Amino acid sequence: MHENDTLRALLQAVKSGTVSVDDALSRLREPKTAELGYATVDLERKARQGESEVIYGAGKTPEQIRGIVNAMREHGQSRLLVTRLSPEKAEALADLPDFAYAPEARVGVCGGFPAPDGLGAVVIATGGTSDIPVAEEAALTAAFYGNRVERLYDVGVAGLHRLLSAADTLQNASVVIAVAGMEGALASVIGGLVRCPVIAVPTSVGYGAAFGGLAALLGMLSACAAGIGVVNIDNGFGAATLASRINHTEAKQ
Amino acid sequence: MHENDTLRALLQAVKSGTVSVDDALSRLREPKTAELGYATVDLERKARQGESEVIYGAGKTPEQIRGIVNAMREHGQSRLLVTRLSPEKAEALADLPDFAYAPEARVGVCGGFPAPDGLGAVVIATGGTSDIPVAEEAALTAAFYGNRVERLYDVGVAGLHRLLSAADTLQNASVVIAVAGMEGALASVIGGLVRCPVIAVPTSVGYGAAFGGLAALLGMLSACAAGIGVVNIDNGFGAATLASRINHTEAKQ
Amino acid sequence: MHENDTLRALLQAVKSGTVSVDDALSRLREPKTAELGYATVDLERKARQGESEVIYGAGKTPEQIRGIVNAMREHGQSRLLVTRLSPEKAEALADLPDFAYAPEARVGVCGGFPAPDGLGAVVIATGGTSDIPVAEEAALTAAFYGNRVERLYDVGVAGLHRLLSAADTLQNASVVIAVAGMEGALASVIGGLVRCPVIAVPTSVGYGAAFGGLAALLGMLSACAAGIGVVNIDNGFGAATLASRINHTEAKQ
Amino acid sequence: MHENDTLRALLQAVKSGTVSVDDALSRLREPKTAELGYATVDLERKARQGESEVIYGAGKTPEQIRGIVNAMREHGQSRLLVTRLSPEKAEALADLPDFAYAPEARVGVCGGFPAPDGLGAVVIATGGTSDIPVAEEAALTAAFYGNRVERLYDVGVAGLHRLLSAADTLQNASVVIAVAGMEGALASVIGGLVRCPVIAVPTSVGYGAAFGGLAALLGMLSACAAGIGVVNIDNGFGAATLASRINHTEAKQ
Amino acid sequence: MHENDTLRALLQAVKSGTVSVDDALSRLREPKTAELGYATVDLERKARQGESEVIYGAGKTPEQIRGIVNAMREHGQSRLLVTRLSPEKAEALADLPDFAYAPEARVGVCGGFPAPDGLGAVVIATGGTSDIPVAEEAALTAAFYGNRVERLYDVGVAGLHRLLSAADTLQNASVVIAVAGMEGALASVIGGLVRCPVIAVPTSVGYGAAFGGLAALLGMLSACAAGIGVVNIDNGFGAATLASRINHTEAKQ
Amino acid sequence: MHENDTLRALLQAVKSGTVSVDDALSRLREPKTAELGYATVDLERKARQGESEVIYGAGKTPEQIRGIVNAMREHGQSRLLVTRLSPEKAEALADLPDFAYAPEARVGVCGGFPAPDGLGAVVIATGGTSDIPVAEEAALTAAFYGNRVERLYDVGVAGLHRLLSAADTLQNASVVIAVAGMEGALASVIGGLVRCPVIAVPTSVGYGAAFGGLAALLGMLSACAAGIGVVNIDNGFGAATLASRINHTEAKQ
Amino acid sequence: MHENDTLRALLQAVKSGTVSVDDALSRLREPKTAELGYATVDLERKARQGESEVIYGAGKTPEQIRGIVNAMREHGQSRLLVTRLSPEKAEALADLPDFAYAPEARVGVCGGFPAPDGLGAVVIATGGTSDIPVAEEAALTAAFYGNRVERLYDVGVAGLHRLLSAADTLQNASVVIAVAGMEGALASVIGGLVRCPVIAVPTSVGYGAAFGGLAALLGMLSACAAGIGVVNIDNGFGAATLASRINHTEAKQ
Amino acid sequence: MHENDTLRALLQAVKSGTVSVDDALSRLREPKTAELGYATVDLERKARQGESEVIYGAGKTPEQIRGIVNAMREHGQSRLLVTRLSPEKAEALADLPDFAYAPEARVGVCGGFPAPDGLGAVVIATGGTSDIPVAEEAALTAAFYGNRVERLYDVGVAGLHRLLSAADTLQNASVVIAVAGMEGALASVIGGLVRCPVIAVPTSVGYGAAFGGLAALLGMLSACAAGIGVVNIDNGFGAATLASRINHTEAKQ
Repeated sequence: MHENDTLRALLQAVKSGTVSVDDALSRLREPKTAELGYATVDLERKARQGESEVIYGAGKTPEQIRGIVNAMREHGQSRLLVTRLSPEKAEALADLPDFAYAPEARVGVCGGFPAPDGLGAVVIATGGTSDIPVAEEAALTAAFYGNRVERLYDVGVAGLHRLLSAADTLQNASVVIAVAGMEGALASVIGGLVRCPVIAVPTSVGYGAAFGGLAALLGMLSACAAGIGVVNIDNGFGAATLASRINHTEAKQ
Repeated sequence: MHENDTLRALLQAVKSGTVSVDDALSRLREPKTAELGYATVDLERKARQGESEVIYGAGKTPEQIRGIVNAMREHGQSRLLVTRLSPEKAEALADLPDFAYAPEARVGVCGGFPAPDGLGAVVIATGGTSDIPVAEEAALTAAFYGNRVERLYDVGVAGLHRLLSAADTLQNASVVIAVAGMEGALASVIGGLVRCPVIAVPTSVGYGAAFGGLAALLGMLSACAAGIGVVNIDNGFGAATLASRINHTEAKQ
Repeated sequence: MHENDTLRALLQAVKSGTVSVDDALSRLREPKTAELGYATVDLERKARQGESEVIYGAGKTPEQIRGIVNAMREHGQSRLLVTRLSPEKAEALADLPDFAYAPEARVGVCGGFPAPDGLGAVVIATGGTSDIPVAEEAALTAAFYGNRVERLYDVGVAGLHRLLSAADTLQNASVVIAVAGMEGALASVIGGLVRCPVIAVPTSVGYGAAFGGLAALLGMLSACAAGIGVVNIDNGFGAATLASRINHTEAKQ
Repeated sequence: MHENDTLRALLQAVKSGTVSVDDALSRLREPKTAELGYATVDLERKARQGESEVIYGAGKTPEQIRGIVNAMREHGQSRLLVTRLSPEKAEALADLPDFAYAPEARVGVCGGFPAPDGLGAVVIATGGTSDIPVAEEAALTAAFYGNRVERLYDVGVAGLHRLLSAADTLQNASVVIAVAGMEGALASVIGGLVRCPVIAVPTSVGYGAAFGGLAALLGMLSACAAGIGVVNIDNGFGAATLASRINHTEAKQ
Repeated sequence: MHENDTLRALLQAVKSGTVSVDDALSRLREPKTAELGYATVDLERKARQGESEVIYGAGKTPEQIRGIVNAMREHGQSRLLVTRLSPEKAEALADLPDFAYAPEARVGVCGGFPAPDGLGAVVIATGGTSDIPVAEEAALTAAFYGNRVERLYDVGVAGLHRLLSAADTLQNASVVIAVAGMEGALASVIGGLVRCPVIAVPTSVGYGAAFGGLAALLGMLSACAAGIGVVNIDNGFGAATLASRINHTEAKQ
Repeated sequence: MHENDTLRALLQAVKSGTVSVDDALSRLREPKTAELGYATVDLERKARQGESEVIYGAGKTPEQIRGIVNAMREHGQSRLLVTRLSPEKAEALADLPDFAYAPEARVGVCGGFPAPDGLGAVVIATGGTSDIPVAEEAALTAAFYGNRVERLYDVGVAGLHRLLSAADTLQNASVVIAVAGMEGALASVIGGLVRCPVIAVPTSVGYGAAFGGLAALLGMLSACAAGIGVVNIDNGFGAATLASRINHTEAKQ
Repeated sequence: MHENDTLRALLQAVKSGTVSVDDALSRLREPKTAELGYATVDLERKARQGESEVIYGAGKTPEQIRGIVNAMREHGQSRLLVTRLSPEKAEALADLPDFAYAPEARVGVCGGFPAPDGLGAVVIATGGTSDIPVAEEAALTAAFYGNRVERLYDVGVAGLHRLLSAADTLQNASVVIAVAGMEGALASVIGGLVRCPVIAVPTSVGYGAAFGGLAALLGMLSACAAGIGVVNIDNGFGAATLASRINHTEAKQ
Repeated sequence: MHENDTLRALLQAVKSGTVSVDDALSRLREPKTAELGYATVDLERKARQGESEVIYGAGKTPEQIRGIVNAMREHGQSRLLVTRLSPEKAEALADLPDFAYAPEARVGVCGGFPAPDGLGAVVIATGGTSDIPVAEEAALTAAFYGNRVERLYDVGVAGLHRLLSAADTLQNASVVIAVAGMEGALASVIGGLVRCPVIAVPTSVGYGAAFGGLAALLGMLSACAAGIGVVNIDNGFGAATLASRINHTEAKQ
């Protein structure tokens, strides 16, 4: 996983004696993680993947989150995102420097948002009002990764003109994130209207045969429109990460 | 289940001596079925429910089907419908009087179709070409029960204008049958456009996460549009039976 | 989706100069929704589908519900139904004008119920006592949409004479809603007795292999009686919407 | 598992020297099975459980079946039942002494059926014609175990009078086996009519949401009537084994 | 469902004029249920099925339970069983005459238990300690129906000698109820040891792949031993009802 | 869906009298589909979405496919792709002009492939040899849409060095399509190595608990790496459509 | 299950008259369990299987646990492990002699841990921080059974270098326990790196399509690497028991 | 993954000039696989994991298999195992040097079996005759990896004495593989009898609620006995690989 150039440079330094064998050995094996006991923090994510590691707040104590935040700040990462963060944990972390909390999205941010630098806009549409928390997780994550975000909320297919009247917004998107529960038909319909990639996020909104998002998930995977990528139920974060990568695609020879 | 008037008449005949106690007892218990050993044919379905019994051809031998057909004809039913009839079995039954077979729908008919006498048209829409066999089972069943049928095939939501350009047909329907596999979004979208009842038929068209019609079934049950009744996967017959009942609703005081 | 006549009139007005091109453009694109940020209220549902939009209370805050109610009242809709409304939220909305709350059905109504104007009665039957909340959601929704409602509660098939003794009521129905959990056999048995459409509502009543309504749902979909349309688990509202449409079917040439 | 009396007798024989220690040891450990390599035939089933071992024909070659039959005949069992036996395998076994094959039930019998010696009749009812193969497996198994069998075929709940007109037969049963696919409501309805035990056999008859017998299975397990025991899908053999045990219950102090 | 003799007597009374036509009509249609609005109490269960109706306490308010109890007492039923009764509801019903509550089984009884009158003993075995509440529901129900009960608790197959050392008890049973969660192997093993019917009750004990009793349910249905009837997950009541019917089987000609 | 400019031009033509009201009305409603009875061919897909419609060959007869091909060619589409095309159907279509068939991918092409015009390469990796047919469907679809394709086959995670030695190829991709059955871990591992979007295609390769692709599907949806979009099981076509859109993303202001 | 030598000795004692027939009979049948009513404690587990019985704390009251502990101590077992022990129950048991409680693992221990005596180290790796409670249950159980434990926590495959940098530890293990939720890919990747047995523990960590551990479970069962044994979801105890047996394997001729 | 010593030697060679930078770079990146286009053969599996790579025959053509065999033979691997090999493919490969085919196990072997060198015996038990093909796949795989194998076939728990009479064999095993379909109780019962590790293999034997091995799989995962590791349904190969690793465990400091 060492990049080729770095590796060549190191080998040449060994050859020239600038770097001893033991040092080279140790660099080839040196820790690229911060070991906290309960967490092994990935310190080269940004170098490797162009994005900082994001902290998944569920299943971690506030103390564990604080420890990871501190380790990352010590290694030079000033902006930090914590997802799936309950209000109680957010309260316990409120004294972190430059910390803000969005309760609907259950997202905490340290260090604010960067200016957008993507190719265009990430449009986030929801089928209903109840899907908004998932959409907001996506919106804040996309903003954190440097994307301009436009919101189209409560435009489900049961009242199709709501969606059709937003056709201009949809057709100008770089990527559309379609967030819907129940039968998840929003993804299919949008998938048939636009020429950009569509990311479908099934939500756990609904009851009975919606089976906690399963109906929407299966529907989105089986959508008759092509060009749709599906993420996990309620996974606004994952959708936005994928959207950001798409919105930052660069030409390569 | 005896109708009140019949029962009263019988009791009065017992009182007046026109009918003996034993005869009355036997009439109150008399068979209203034809017992064929392998089948107990319901001979009062039409009196009780306004529709003749229909023969479900799957899982029956041609000989069994022929026996049931004959029993029903002997009891005065001249028109007969056999569903889920394979070409091989249809071949074996081809000498039945006035028999015709529709291979795509896998439906056999004895005695032809009646003139339509419903309140309006039953519109049958499909999401794709592969859904047509199920739609045709519905179309022929609806015609058998005396309904005018209009077909809108291959109007799935991935190309929404196909459906929207048929808006007049949809809005003039007495009832719409929406037949779709994959994610089944057709039912939701039609459900949001019309004011008549919508019957949704999930089909087993699709693969992978469509799970043999499960995705469409769950999606149709979870549809964000209301006023939709769902039938079993691939059950064109059941959908048409329900549609026919709706299309023959009468005013009662 | 514009109705033909309206569209023709608009085009003629453009031709005659009564309406400018920009105005026509704007009307063809004008919002037919009220945009509340968290909700895009469908203001032409009644024109398009003959029924007012109903507010699904689950997953919305009382403030959001109040906002939607106000938007709809401002656009001339005086009667309003809110389903899946918890007692706590109902409490918070108690000061809405002419508001009433039915706790068993978890339904709130503004503006009372209209006089029935359907073709006949909607009969609502339940398998047991525990199914009554779902049945009441259906009953109040049907009444809200202008239907006469008759209730047959706790007539499950384990004591068949309870159901058979109500045969007259069943046979006079325009449509029957069969509400049952556990194995959901009520729908099959009623489906074999009546000549009108039957709407089956599986409920989450039961335990173990009932799997929260799944057994009833699969059973109702697989019912050996035909002419049955199934709605989602516990979806009394959807059943009543479909029943009302059936009960308001009109003859079309 | 040694019966107490046998064990005491053996120990006393050891004490008195009639049996040596080594012989006793060997008897306490002696094989009670016939070891065929591919099968370990249980030779004391009848002593232990009052029924001979039955051969499950699926997944065994005709040669293996023949070998097991011979081993059992050599150990004194003259009557033998082979279930799930395909016509091809039956053909290959046709030269076994006193062998007969019932193709609908897919059951082979060596040595014929005994006279019935149970407490009363085992009544076997099916919902439809397609359920008959499973019912016949049950009927022949019950006869093999010494039970009088009565058949009530195609009496499903969609035409309830078919079932009600057989009320006398049902009420005289020692045990009823209800065989039904689709939604399996037959078990519930019979369970509410009789006072004897009911054994429910879901069948794989049906399609779509019947999911190969799953709908019937879940429905029968969730039946609102009590006193019903369910066996595996299509398991006519298991139902008849249980029925026979019930029909041979003896009073104990 | 009227018994033949009653019907003949009524018809003769009509003939002789002792009973008027209208009275006969009304008797043939008279209510055999007590209608409480929220419940339709089955008053002829005992005549029809030999067992009193039992009240399922879950999903009913204490007031509803009290109302049903009173209706049944007024119609002459002095002993009453209420299952799935929470401690809170039991507290609210504590003033019912002769009422006792068993908290582990969550069962309430009015009027005490009868003397056993069955053919032999109902043996109830559990795999572990956590299965005891379900077993106790079965034990009290069996006692309520007039059966002698023997308990074998915590004899799961992981320590096989625990079960084998109870072989005498098992082999003297009229019927064995095997109550087990996790993989439910107890039913298979007991099914291979005894000659009486075995009723298997899967419990929701376990975690993960036990899936709330599903693993035990599927295992018991697929048991390699025959002669086993399965009831719903945690359904001690249903198992005991079936066991009681088996234990009260009578010889019929 | 009319684009704004077109609509404005039309309205101005109406105003100026160049276009009559009836003509305008008809244009606003004119068919944008070719109606073949069994198919409603979408003729403006390319205009609307930048890609020609692709023909899904499963569930269509060769005659239907030929009809659709001809309709599309008549409307000016010269390049055509048919997926899920069995060898038998391909044989029957072999006389179509400029037709080629790839049997492993089960894909037919009319008119050849265009020169690549995307931003970079679409890299397609498979876990094993058995996944290659799905990967080839993706590869040919991507080529059809104008993408350069690189293949990395049989680089599953059980031999991690196979994947790691291809790190350069992976890191130069515009988008990676990870095709894997069994547990689908390939997507997670690639997702942690690259900075471009990853599209995961679960395949039905595997047996038992792989459940026809379900294990891979659930695993890919739950992947601990972010930035992964999942498509349906075995859906190489859908993955390539999405990849092509990503690879053709353009900067918008 | 009596060992051969003991049995021979007993028989010889009978022969010689040292032991009477009745005594021998009673010894052959004597209880090897302590019967507590709610529990049948297995007192020869250690003799039979080399491990003491462990108490599963869920579903047992503190009083029941105390009773079992006392019974085992009375029969000479001084070290005791209680798993799935909630903090509340641990509090209630705090006065047991030499009792300690590990809240993260939810494990209580009486009598401390023995010195390790296995062949090598049991290495326990987790995919993330949230998997640690399950891993700690495994770690303490392994220690209780006399194994040296090494922990590798939060080394999931999304950051592969975290795992690769621990290659030495992995390759020196006697057995590795891989604990992971979400897609469970950790087991596959480790399974491809080491030469010792790998035990995979799926955890319920994750959401949506992780379905409470199902995705990880199916993935681990379908892993493309061989040599992996899977235990139940969250079953750290079972994994450690298996690991300990592996780590104590002895050479046999 | 480079071993430390190799890496140090290489770096020293670079320093001393024995190896040029470019050569070192290339060695650090050199292929350790044979690239066949359709397969990337892992050539260092044996070095890394102590076992040769085994060829999974399903989903590969005979030509592909032959190609892989040849590549492995060229790299010095003389013994080869091919699993899931159909008789037709085996026929096509019959001319490979020293090739033998076991049709029941569907396994092909090149180069014969080595002498056993494990710690003891691998005992393979099956519940029934139909499980033998899976057991034989395990037996031949275990032999291929150098293990002594003992077979106990058809010892299912429905006739418990069959299993108990083999207690000596079980208790002398180094590891037991329990192969069973239906409810899979064999694993639980064996798990309670032995002190060595138990590997459970669910098979797809059974029907209905066995759901193709799901019942056995869930049962084995939920087994009340501890110390059991489960592999995929019908995965005899995987079980034997794990068993062989256990049977070759070595003491480490």
